[in-house]
Amino acid sequence: MDEGVERAAGSLSLLALEGIPEVLPGMPLAPLITAALKRHSYTPADGDVLLVCQKIVSKSENRFVELASVQVSARAQELAVICGKDPRLVEIVLRESADVVRCAPRVLIVRHRLGYVMANAGVDQSNIPESQSRVLLLPADPDASAAALREALSRTLGAAPAVVITDTFGRPWRQGVCGTAIGASGIVALLDRRGEKDRFGRELQVTQVAIADGIAAAATLLMGEGAEGHPVILARGLPRAWKRDTARAADLLRPLAEDLFR
Amino acid sequence: MDEGVERAAGSLSLLALEGIPEVLPGMPLAPLITAALKRHSYTPADGDVLLVCQKIVSKSENRFVELASVQVSARAQELAVICGKDPRLVEIVLRESADVVRCAPRVLIVRHRLGYVMANAGVDQSNIPESQSRVLLLPADPDASAAALREALSRTLGAAPAVVITDTFGRPWRQGVCGTAIGASGIVALLDRRGEKDRFGRELQVTQVAIADGIAAAATLLMGEGAEGHPVILARGLPRAWKRDTARAADLLRPLAEDLFR
Repeated sequence: MDEGVERAAGSLSLLALEGIPEVLPGMPLAPLITAALKRHSYTPADGDVLLVCQKIVSKSENRFVELASVQVSARAQELAVICGKDPRLVEIVLRESADVVRCAPRVLIVRHRLGYVMANAGVDQSNIPESQSRVLLLPADPDASAAALREALSRTLGAAPAVVITDTFGRPWRQGVCGTAIGASGIVALLDRRGEKDRFGRELQVTQVAIADGIAAAATLLMGEGAEGHPVILARGLPRAWKRDTARAADLLRPLAEDLFR
Repeated sequence: MDEGVERAAGSLSLLALEGIPEVLPGMPLAPLITAALKRHSYTPADGDVLLVCQKIVSKSENRFVELASVQVSARAQELAVICGKDPRLVEIVLRESADVVRCAPRVLIVRHRLGYVMANAGVDQSNIPESQSRVLLLPADPDASAAALREALSRTLGAAPAVVITDTFGRPWRQGVCGTAIGASGIVALLDRRGEKDRFGRELQVTQVAIADGIAAAATLLMGEGAEGHPVILARGLPRAWKRDTARAADLLRPLAEDLFR
């Protein structure tokens, strides 16, 4: 492997795009993001990545569910008693999930049918209008959403930055949420460094690096969770060698057979 | 809470410092980092954070252990057979640990006596000279190391940037390692947002944000694991409101009583 090609960048900048409006159901994101980029006098360059908050992707894809429409199953009712959450919310979480990992007071951690282990299957009531009556699901296929957004941006911008769709996840053993990549297109999500050597010629012990998660973690700090609302971050300066047309955030999921907690 | 004070930054830049030499045992870091910063024409500003790779802190603190000096216990011998690692390395890992979380072929995950759940207790053989005969432990007290380095830098620079000591951790459920904060001084490690509201006046569901881990995750992408070797990253542009004199990376450890996997 050519170490020169795979070497890390010397600098990286992250910029929160101003002026992304409230996204309404069905509203395409590419024109909104293109307009915001143009206000920042953006010219595409190799190594650019747009980090896009899951919430605006879900809104654009109209992934809202009305709570009043939900028929609550016996299983959801049972879990709702344990975790103390709205039984209709628990029903929606179960429909999104392959597995319940943990249900305890105030805690409902599941394996989402897309493979992420996360609280409430990512079903969200914050930063959405009319949150008393409806909730917002994750995008149906975040890797496909990232690829479609990148494709649409390449038409409006001439060249396509990579796209990473981010969410914030709680983590075992550590406090606080951290930004995580749930969709990616155009950038390697998981970098395989097998065969590379350290500065003293010893084979690297760490061979796989979660590139997309690392960028997502920093970008979500700029997005903020509260009133500030910057759902799109432009990251610049990543190595050109991390460009991958076929990469997907799903590569970051540990295969079930290697899961130490099953 | 004043949301204006706690709002996220609009931009963030990360720069890999050039010219940090190989750190020898006992060599203080502050003069090396000060010299590198001066070569980059650095002037201290609020919101600056230095991300420092654990490895150079450990080298500076001479945390080397000679493999030849190690007496292997029966317990280490037994685990070494299971995980297929050098029994002397396993013995050193056990001495650094409070608990073995998982031992399987090629896997030895422990709870370090400082509280981190991690592979091999962070005991490392890469990027150290003479790695056939010795290994490198984590710093004895990374929060104290961060505070001491910040104090020393404040003397040489006039004003002290915050300091975060980073390591790369594997994670349950997800592939690839991600940068993590193991020591911090001068910046909030875990930001408590309880009481803040979203853009529609609803209480935030996410109330604690792992700030130091988010910055560490991006910074380690620039450090690289291999031949490139940039052990110190300067991050600029973080909100002034995230400055905390009393914050520690230990705040990021989930209390044992809340650990879902015990």
